[in-house]
Amino acid sequence: QMDCQAHITRDEYQTIIGVSGSPQQLDRNQIVGMPGVQQLLSTRTPFKRASRDFQSNSTEVVVGDVTIGGGRLVVMAGPCAVENLEQMSQTAIAVRDAGARVLRGGAFKPRTSPYSFQGLEQAGLKILDQVRREIGLPVVSEVTQPDLVSAMIESVDILQIGARNMQNYALLQAVGRSQKPVLLKRGMMSTIEELLMAAEYILSQGNGHIILCERGIRTFETYTRNTLDINAIPVLKKLTHLPVIVDPSHGTGRWDLVQSVSLAAIAAGADGLMIEVHVDPANALSDGNQSLKPERFEALMTALRPVAKAVGRSL
Amino acid sequence: QMDCQAHITRDEYQTIIGVSGSPQQLDRNQIVGMPGVQQLLSTRTPFKRASRDFQSNSTEVVVGDVTIGGGRLVVMAGPCAVENLEQMSQTAIAVRDAGARVLRGGAFKPRTSPYSFQGLEQAGLKILDQVRREIGLPVVSEVTQPDLVSAMIESVDILQIGARNMQNYALLQAVGRSQKPVLLKRGMMSTIEELLMAAEYILSQGNGHIILCERGIRTFETYTRNTLDINAIPVLKKLTHLPVIVDPSHGTGRWDLVQSVSLAAIAAGADGLMIEVHVDPANALSDGNQSLKPERFEALMTALRPVAKAVGRSL
Amino acid sequence: QMDCQAHITRDEYQTIIGVSGSPQQLDRNQIVGMPGVQQLLSTRTPFKRASRDFQSNSTEVVVGDVTIGGGRLVVMAGPCAVENLEQMSQTAIAVRDAGARVLRGGAFKPRTSPYSFQGLEQAGLKILDQVRREIGLPVVSEVTQPDLVSAMIESVDILQIGARNMQNYALLQAVGRSQKPVLLKRGMMSTIEELLMAAEYILSQGNGHIILCERGIRTFETYTRNTLDINAIPVLKKLTHLPVIVDPSHGTGRWDLVQSVSLAAIAAGADGLMIEVHVDPANALSDGNQSLKPERFEALMTALRPVAKAVGRSL
Amino acid sequence: QMDCQAHITRDEYQTIIGVSGSPQQLDRNQIVGMPGVQQLLSTRTPFKRASRDFQSNSTEVVVGDVTIGGGRLVVMAGPCAVENLEQMSQTAIAVRDAGARVLRGGAFKPRTSPYSFQGLEQAGLKILDQVRREIGLPVVSEVTQPDLVSAMIESVDILQIGARNMQNYALLQAVGRSQKPVLLKRGMMSTIEELLMAAEYILSQGNGHIILCERGIRTFETYTRNTLDINAIPVLKKLTHLPVIVDPSHGTGRWDLVQSVSLAAIAAGADGLMIEVHVDPANALSDGNQSLKPERFEALMTALRPVAKAVGRSL
Repeated sequence: QMDCQAHITRDEYQTIIGVSGSPQQLDRNQIVGMPGVQQLLSTRTPFKRASRDFQSNSTEVVVGDVTIGGGRLVVMAGPCAVENLEQMSQTAIAVRDAGARVLRGGAFKPRTSPYSFQGLEQAGLKILDQVRREIGLPVVSEVTQPDLVSAMIESVDILQIGARNMQNYALLQAVGRSQKPVLLKRGMMSTIEELLMAAEYILSQGNGHIILCERGIRTFETYTRNTLDINAIPVLKKLTHLPVIVDPSHGTGRWDLVQSVSLAAIAAGADGLMIEVHVDPANALSDGNQSLKPERFEALMTALRPVAKAVGRSL
Repeated sequence: QMDCQAHITRDEYQTIIGVSGSPQQLDRNQIVGMPGVQQLLSTRTPFKRASRDFQSNSTEVVVGDVTIGGGRLVVMAGPCAVENLEQMSQTAIAVRDAGARVLRGGAFKPRTSPYSFQGLEQAGLKILDQVRREIGLPVVSEVTQPDLVSAMIESVDILQIGARNMQNYALLQAVGRSQKPVLLKRGMMSTIEELLMAAEYILSQGNGHIILCERGIRTFETYTRNTLDINAIPVLKKLTHLPVIVDPSHGTGRWDLVQSVSLAAIAAGADGLMIEVHVDPANALSDGNQSLKPERFEALMTALRPVAKAVGRSL
Repeated sequence: QMDCQAHITRDEYQTIIGVSGSPQQLDRNQIVGMPGVQQLLSTRTPFKRASRDFQSNSTEVVVGDVTIGGGRLVVMAGPCAVENLEQMSQTAIAVRDAGARVLRGGAFKPRTSPYSFQGLEQAGLKILDQVRREIGLPVVSEVTQPDLVSAMIESVDILQIGARNMQNYALLQAVGRSQKPVLLKRGMMSTIEELLMAAEYILSQGNGHIILCERGIRTFETYTRNTLDINAIPVLKKLTHLPVIVDPSHGTGRWDLVQSVSLAAIAAGADGLMIEVHVDPANALSDGNQSLKPERFEALMTALRPVAKAVGRSL
Repeated sequence: QMDCQAHITRDEYQTIIGVSGSPQQLDRNQIVGMPGVQQLLSTRTPFKRASRDFQSNSTEVVVGDVTIGGGRLVVMAGPCAVENLEQMSQTAIAVRDAGARVLRGGAFKPRTSPYSFQGLEQAGLKILDQVRREIGLPVVSEVTQPDLVSAMIESVDILQIGARNMQNYALLQAVGRSQKPVLLKRGMMSTIEELLMAAEYILSQGNGHIILCERGIRTFETYTRNTLDINAIPVLKKLTHLPVIVDPSHGTGRWDLVQSVSLAAIAAGADGLMIEVHVDPANALSDGNQSLKPERFEALMTALRPVAKAVGRSL
């Protein structure tokens, strides 16, 4: 009925039925729910277009004259939130001069509390658009709902899907219907497989310009805001052809850990980094605790170069 | 500058500055980022309208002639997904006759894989609307994006926010702008505080008709699909005035554990349950493994009555 | 070579080899390490003597005139630590009069800090021995190293293996070589399967008088000290013939949650409870925050009776 | 009464009492249990001798002519378990020639199943003693119970405390009473603070020759055996003066991830590595899946050198 093949193995305790067929045809729950079925074990990955089995060559995502996923590492940097034109311009110049090649900045900020600063919204997009023209860096910024996709496509170069929205399927499909590069952050509660299934949602709509981002997962450890999953970098590089970058600012939640963990991420094989930089962290409207000052960001870039070279990459 | 008071304590190792003021005025990150600040500890909860401090009387959410949060427990039951009119009608009659007072059924199904069944969508809403009229039970169904809120308000009685969307703030605000009852499920890796902050998003838009739902959290244990957090029930009853129900179907992921955990939830003080029931679990299009057959649901309802009575509730 | 049978299934992508044989003969790692092996999936449980497949009748552990695992529930109660004779006597009388049938009290206390109170040690054992004779209740107390087993057998009736020692195999084997009843607590980082493998260590040495104890696991939730895994109760009752009790004091870490979670545990099918009670929690030398005063313990026992009856048990 | 000072802050909602004094004098539970106390927040770390505040200079642990914690990184390598003299000799020569400076090998193996290979025990110690003399490398091996400490001191150079025994306080105290170097592995569900408290147990007995080892923590991610906590490296280097090494074999559980994660660990600031190497992983008696073949270990050492140099270290 399901158009698949079954192969039967029996011993004195149990019967094992090997089932082969494509994941589209098989529904886990339907099989598990059949009478007499005790357990269903999968031997193959449920993602397809995101898999190295589907495409063995690494994908390179091109944004203007920046290529993410090639030999040259890409560092994205900027403030958590766009606060005003002056702050964005100053930060953009500082990070560009230190070697960042993409500017980050949030116009729409999903915050745990409805009473926290939620971003400048449309006014923030205008600032981003103005700054990217003046400074000459492409911009990445978070899109938080399907309705905003078309407006953001005009103002930014890479659409970011935030960790909280990694399984917001309506949003994944909306960015999938565009041809804009997408930076997809791993949910703090999501497995590597679920991250790849989220990418599959975007790919299934026809958009293959996806950059994956490891940004830390939630664990029992409370000293750091999240636990950066360093294992995920080589795992993702094996499982998928998509480029993988790392966000050590969210992955640690503490500016004084960002440099060490950035070096680790590059040593582990990441294709780039995303770093929060603020000209005045003490007065940042969000995430000041994990933001670097421009001079520390410059020191980080200096420390990165020999590590990049040691693993055969350039910066 | 922040319009709050500071109180200073010093010893030989450190200086502690007690700060008092309303959470709206204080930004954690701004304080943490100040030079010389090593650590910021909170002594008060960040939610306000959801708190028992704000409203000491328990909220009762009224849906037609059903009251959730009063002395009488409310059991919501039905299939994971609406599959067709016959399946919905049969299940609705079965659960109503066994004592369920709200019918559940998903028309829009957020699934991990883009290749899995995503629900009947608009056709599913029509079926729900027809069945609720015929059977006489109010209906709860999941809304997955802000755009769908107005359509769903016409067809269903309670809007469900699913676990994956618990921090989809655009969606929370959209249901908050309606006056429709909302069933808010805890995210599978969300803390109790984050659940209450999500409720706060809805409350801050003016909608106070909120039912909270514990449905299991993600842990290292793999024998069960999730770990139902039984502690969360008395914790929520203390912290908030909102009613709390429990979903043991998702909380365990196995139909053979549903009855035991349902009894436990009621004994712990839950105001109701949400149970997946399917006339033919082996052929269910989703979640067959955790769905009860109608006769087992009836047995569960029978087992519930004395437990409800033992804790001073009726069914 | 391994004395087992192999059954082969092939499709276009992979070859699945079903292997059957006893777990003693097969070493997971050896198979996984073989060239060409991509993945090894288990279809059967690795525990044997602890399994219901090995013994379908429920084990009843008899301690004097108390039977754990029968129709009558057993509540064990007492202070976290033995502090002095007066405190133990007073508590023992109070809990016995309220209906507790086993007295708990730690003489050896494993504490996270070397600077915290570590228990009265040998002097504590003497107090326990004296109190059990005077009050007439059997005593359960924690054994923390193999050397202490013989001394403790003289002074106490049930040897407790604490959560931190659940995988202290030398200790498990030492208690396994005795015929003394053992209360085995689930490690806060341990899966249900690992708990059963720890029981298997004791069983493999010939001691089958084992009581399992769910006491909460470590998760990301920080409001409670641990997350009591209510699902584990029906899961354990299915997988093993050993009795299962619940410790809501450690499972919640807050005295004000103990009653609700105790009722839930019994409703879920637990064979008993272990409750911390202290005559003066504010001055307890350990765990005062999660200890009930005698009058609250009495109220808990009163609340338990109707719930026990509702699930067909007595107290 | 507790010999400490109190400083009081009041606002309209609550009273905050700042308490200062040494952690030895204050018992958390006693304070929390006091009437009127709602919450107790700590502002200082509970460890003392392990803290950088107590000793600002980094500790160097000297084992023969090897110094752990200095400018030169130390790689420890060898099989999970000692299997026989030939296997140990061959592996020892291979890892020494590739640049390892300490040999690892388990004689006592704590295994989840009582039916798995438990190590050669005393015979294993003899093999280790013979091989270290012949090959000229110091040896690290796990001690699993207090009784074995004196025997192991004769045969090995570094006593390892395994992850499962990190809170086996009798064992910590036993190795603390020796002056032998101790390799203390982080428990798989232990916080960084608990790891430092375990070190404090050893330090409090007078033994300061402690090497900490991050070896991965248990999380919800199932693709890897554990989640290596890369953040823990810079955190530990800040909090404590003790040297920190990393075990990427257990931290990933997969040999094909070991190299990437090893490079990351060194880039993050680790003082060394512990790597499982086996001459024939497919036939290893334990952990074959995560063991490198000698040639892959040599490749790893070659890849490490430029990364070590990039962060100012030598190998």
